[in-house]
Amino acid sequence: MIPRHDPQHKTFASDNYAGVHPEILQAIATANGGHQISYGDDAYTEALQDVFKQHFGEQAQVWPVFNGTAANVVSLRAMTAHWEAVICAETAHINTDEGGAPEVAGGIKLLTVPTPDGKLTPELIDRQAWGFGDVHRAQPRVVSISNTTELGTLYTPDEVAAICAHAHELGLLVHVDGSRLTNAAAALDVPMRALTTDAGVDVLSFGGTKIGLLYGEAVVVLNPAAATGIDYIRKTFMQLSSKMRFVSAQFEALLSGDLWLRNARRANAMGRRLADAVRDIPGVELPRPVEANAVFAILPRDVAERLQKRFRFYTWNEATGEVRWMCAFDTTESDVDAFAAAIAAEMTTALPS
Amino acid sequence: MIPRHDPQHKTFASDNYAGVHPEILQAIATANGGHQISYGDDAYTEALQDVFKQHFGEQAQVWPVFNGTAANVVSLRAMTAHWEAVICAETAHINTDEGGAPEVAGGIKLLTVPTPDGKLTPELIDRQAWGFGDVHRAQPRVVSISNTTELGTLYTPDEVAAICAHAHELGLLVHVDGSRLTNAAAALDVPMRALTTDAGVDVLSFGGTKIGLLYGEAVVVLNPAAATGIDYIRKTFMQLSSKMRFVSAQFEALLSGDLWLRNARRANAMGRRLADAVRDIPGVELPRPVEANAVFAILPRDVAERLQKRFRFYTWNEATGEVRWMCAFDTTESDVDAFAAAIAAEMTTALPS
Amino acid sequence: MIPRHDPQHKTFASDNYAGVHPEILQAIATANGGHQISYGDDAYTEALQDVFKQHFGEQAQVWPVFNGTAANVVSLRAMTAHWEAVICAETAHINTDEGGAPEVAGGIKLLTVPTPDGKLTPELIDRQAWGFGDVHRAQPRVVSISNTTELGTLYTPDEVAAICAHAHELGLLVHVDGSRLTNAAAALDVPMRALTTDAGVDVLSFGGTKIGLLYGEAVVVLNPAAATGIDYIRKTFMQLSSKMRFVSAQFEALLSGDLWLRNARRANAMGRRLADAVRDIPGVELPRPVEANAVFAILPRDVAERLQKRFRFYTWNEATGEVRWMCAFDTTESDVDAFAAAIAAEMTTALPS
Amino acid sequence: MIPRHDPQHKTFASDNYAGVHPEILQAIATANGGHQISYGDDAYTEALQDVFKQHFGEQAQVWPVFNGTAANVVSLRAMTAHWEAVICAETAHINTDEGGAPEVAGGIKLLTVPTPDGKLTPELIDRQAWGFGDVHRAQPRVVSISNTTELGTLYTPDEVAAICAHAHELGLLVHVDGSRLTNAAAALDVPMRALTTDAGVDVLSFGGTKIGLLYGEAVVVLNPAAATGIDYIRKTFMQLSSKMRFVSAQFEALLSGDLWLRNARRANAMGRRLADAVRDIPGVELPRPVEANAVFAILPRDVAERLQKRFRFYTWNEATGEVRWMCAFDTTESDVDAFAAAIAAEMTTALPS
Repeated sequence: MIPRHDPQHKTFASDNYAGVHPEILQAIATANGGHQISYGDDAYTEALQDVFKQHFGEQAQVWPVFNGTAANVVSLRAMTAHWEAVICAETAHINTDEGGAPEVAGGIKLLTVPTPDGKLTPELIDRQAWGFGDVHRAQPRVVSISNTTELGTLYTPDEVAAICAHAHELGLLVHVDGSRLTNAAAALDVPMRALTTDAGVDVLSFGGTKIGLLYGEAVVVLNPAAATGIDYIRKTFMQLSSKMRFVSAQFEALLSGDLWLRNARRANAMGRRLADAVRDIPGVELPRPVEANAVFAILPRDVAERLQKRFRFYTWNEATGEVRWMCAFDTTESDVDAFAAAIAAEMTTALPS
Repeated sequence: MIPRHDPQHKTFASDNYAGVHPEILQAIATANGGHQISYGDDAYTEALQDVFKQHFGEQAQVWPVFNGTAANVVSLRAMTAHWEAVICAETAHINTDEGGAPEVAGGIKLLTVPTPDGKLTPELIDRQAWGFGDVHRAQPRVVSISNTTELGTLYTPDEVAAICAHAHELGLLVHVDGSRLTNAAAALDVPMRALTTDAGVDVLSFGGTKIGLLYGEAVVVLNPAAATGIDYIRKTFMQLSSKMRFVSAQFEALLSGDLWLRNARRANAMGRRLADAVRDIPGVELPRPVEANAVFAILPRDVAERLQKRFRFYTWNEATGEVRWMCAFDTTESDVDAFAAAIAAEMTTALPS
Repeated sequence: MIPRHDPQHKTFASDNYAGVHPEILQAIATANGGHQISYGDDAYTEALQDVFKQHFGEQAQVWPVFNGTAANVVSLRAMTAHWEAVICAETAHINTDEGGAPEVAGGIKLLTVPTPDGKLTPELIDRQAWGFGDVHRAQPRVVSISNTTELGTLYTPDEVAAICAHAHELGLLVHVDGSRLTNAAAALDVPMRALTTDAGVDVLSFGGTKIGLLYGEAVVVLNPAAATGIDYIRKTFMQLSSKMRFVSAQFEALLSGDLWLRNARRANAMGRRLADAVRDIPGVELPRPVEANAVFAILPRDVAERLQKRFRFYTWNEATGEVRWMCAFDTTESDVDAFAAAIAAEMTTALPS
Repeated sequence: MIPRHDPQHKTFASDNYAGVHPEILQAIATANGGHQISYGDDAYTEALQDVFKQHFGEQAQVWPVFNGTAANVVSLRAMTAHWEAVICAETAHINTDEGGAPEVAGGIKLLTVPTPDGKLTPELIDRQAWGFGDVHRAQPRVVSISNTTELGTLYTPDEVAAICAHAHELGLLVHVDGSRLTNAAAALDVPMRALTTDAGVDVLSFGGTKIGLLYGEAVVVLNPAAATGIDYIRKTFMQLSSKMRFVSAQFEALLSGDLWLRNARRANAMGRRLADAVRDIPGVELPRPVEANAVFAILPRDVAERLQKRFRFYTWNEATGEVRWMCAFDTTESDVDAFAAAIAAEMTTALPS
């Protein structure tokens, strides 16, 4: 097979535009050859349990799935009875970017809350955490937060702990969409368990794809009392990989050493580098804190459009013209510098607003 | 990462115990590096359309998904309205081995028919193809057949064509679970389109994993009028891969040359070799025709149990003691010969039945 | 409003062709006037709990719903986790006559068993009660039987008890579709609890409509450990009646005295009378035992067609020409006699077969 | 059966606390006796088609269902493909009061919009009507409005027409939750078709229960191209009444003469009378316009609590202390006057706020 793309070309569109980290590809090759029991009864998946326990504590249990939508929907379905609902930010990925998967495939109602920065707080949770015992109201059962959030912001360990304490007091469970949990932990320079197990999180969707895996996310149960039937739900939700040894081998390569941290630090550093490089360009506004690997910016539309032709990235808000620039584990300093230079250059020819 | 298994060890349990064909791994490496648009708008997925058209005709359209359960459920959901049902053999994988995914995640009722050999016929279809327009009966809409079947048997092009003609006459669509379509085509020495497009099949679940892919199956629409909304259904059913270039690159490596055929011929040849080697061993019975890569056998339980400790394989029917031996694309002649020798040796110490 | 039908005209099509028993209509009128709390917090629904306890024991709890499809689907959903399945006879109403409601609205897989007479037995249950713990198999959780069955047959208390004992031993729960439980109890001359609570049944769908109610069926939980969340499931499955006082008042009128028994005895007696009247007509065959209010008969097709123009009834099996004659609570001796006379008369002009 | 309540007692909690209008009960009695084909093939249901055509135009088709939750979910499911979503006000009954039925039983995602008064406008619709063709976004397909709204407000014919024009321009369909459409039409003194068919509405949930029926709501399709499969959806969603003649007879009694209008005018007049009687009581605030039969009020909590012990009604907003007083078709002037007098009396002893 011949290559169909330029392996040097980078974008600032999403960390899932990146490919596979070489150490991950090597792990797949290492796990190849011969026969292994399919559907997760292999040696690699068995070993993976310990790898996750090292990061998330002795009680942690892990179920690899194919993608992030699935990690979220399987998690939430395993945490809820048929009639129970999930409180989340209006901007949560599960609400805005899953095509309706929680409702359509999962039959799960979301109770959404507007937020200024993509982050829930105990006070914001209370806006939907009511009506317990009222059959006319979908029963709140889970609070789901994303860390990092869809707006590039972070929850600190204390913020997560405050949410968990409040949720548990109300009889609610807490789920973290950790599609970019590695970025959050690296940015805060804390172990991942500080943002999850130690803060009281019950179930975690752990993201592998955006941080260098070929494919693979994981449902990680931190509180065994909080979820049931994941083996079965994963199967009926079409997420049971036959050759699971390869998903597990990738996660082992990511997590048994410091690859996850190297990759996350790199992506975050590139985000900061980009923010620093453009912050002072006249006409470019960074409306949100840059806390991990996402940079949100407002710049003239004509400039954005010209830039998008050369460096693909997404317009986040058509109304305000806000765009998102995302750095990946493989974004280099020269990628950033070239992009920043292009931004500066294009700004010089911006139309008057 | 260190290997956790013996890359020389083979089993006769399932073709999904095998790993990844080296040419497939190479294709993944080739597609790596740099950024590509995620979620299927990449150059590899674009190219894949033509690859499938070459095999299945100009009207063919392909949507890669993660696994076979998903290929089936996405296909069937795209072919049916909310209230419509699917006729299949009682032994069909969608009925017996998906953990209930069609019903639980898809909300699709299956109308099952007992068969002698895992194969539907026009007459058997008629046992469930009735009640059209009766609101009390789930409305039959699709006939789903597996080729090869779960019992290792094959449908010939004529048999598929007869089913399609009958189904279409009744206003029904035809779906093929082609998890092992490559094995069927290789065994019959016909192009895959002879078993699908040319026979009148509407939608195909095309299997990649069992024939050498790391992961990846595909929904292939052969009759564009037969399915709607696959883009959306794939997303809501949690099957939209972000780094889809790699699924597509694998399929291209499998299908653009003759890798699919080499792999399928090898697996089939090993099935025949095994059948031939054991057929005349006293006390070993082969109750079903060996038409592709599966060999079903009845042998004394104590012998089966001793063999299973050394060469993993599944007992297919606890009541009759029937076992299944499956050959994979990487099964070698010496693997088969060693297994056959072990069977012969164990039979000499079989307990009197 | 003017009447649009002849209130004297009777059919032998179904007991749900009948209207409302006058005592039931009177109960509705009695419950009318003034305001009562809606959605089941009214005095009539409160009182209904005791009415059901008198029939089904102190632990019984009742939830009225609108129709029989709903009583079954709500019951089964409340007894199962997302991935669990229900074993039933192939001829069960839930499999053949709900339009796929258990699968489509409930997401519940049915595991069906062919039976000679519509009745499950411990041995027949075993044909589907396997694969526990295997994620590839929808997990059996409930055995559902109908009493009376769709073929007019009965389970005796001993037969129900044997099923319950076997099911419980396997870790399964037992559900009874009691759409015609009153007919069964009356035919056997036993209290309804002999066929349910005392035999070990866990959850009952209790039928009111066919035995004289305007509308209304009930989910009756006999084993509180066997079902959860019915309040919520009833609501989300669109079965929470706002003016529930009227459903409850009807059930109270049916069950607080002997109206249920009078109605069931009458319907059963008319079934026997009809069977006795036609049994000896040459050319009429009664292929099944007449155990309650249903009579199955095989007679020449031309005769059946002529009769159906005057006395509506259903052809049960197009292949064999078997028809079903159903007697209702309001079927009279003269209705039966006129119908039997018509059958005898038409038979004299039957075409040679 | 003895009465279990005081038929003179009225509340201000909900119009579904009321019983059955005597003319409706009479219609049920008229339809009683003899046999009629079940499941909707009866003479009453046939006649009902014309009754609805007289109100809603020649193209109108009607499907009776059991309750309002069902009318909404069946309507919305019939208007959408598996992956399509519904835009509605955050306060819409389908979002807040169905226990999650659209999502849980229907698998339908709601896209909600905050509103000042429970009413959508073209501008508010645009807040969710975007992302067409984007698989990551649940695809907007239907705009659902309630008339009257959950906040007692009305849409005028022009307002409905503006919404329909805008929706249709966007390729969206319009559904009206007409649980209280009769109240809206009576209040505006327009025929019901002015608010529906003539304004461009595609599908209507027509409410019968709150305006005097024993039970029964209806899915009314005004644009036959806008909905498919209602016969089947109604069945699988457990809404097919066996003795449907009685639902249809009730609707005929309600709609063939002016009973609907008399009842709606009475309820609305009582709402106005109550508003007028309390508007000037110091300390009582009416924060919303009183446009039909609902009166929202803010009054001291201690007063509300004392009143609620004697005249049941609901607190609408715990945070603000806003309560809702609802008048029914059977609310009398003396009921209102007694309640208003009680409010005035209790206010004299209100605690200082």
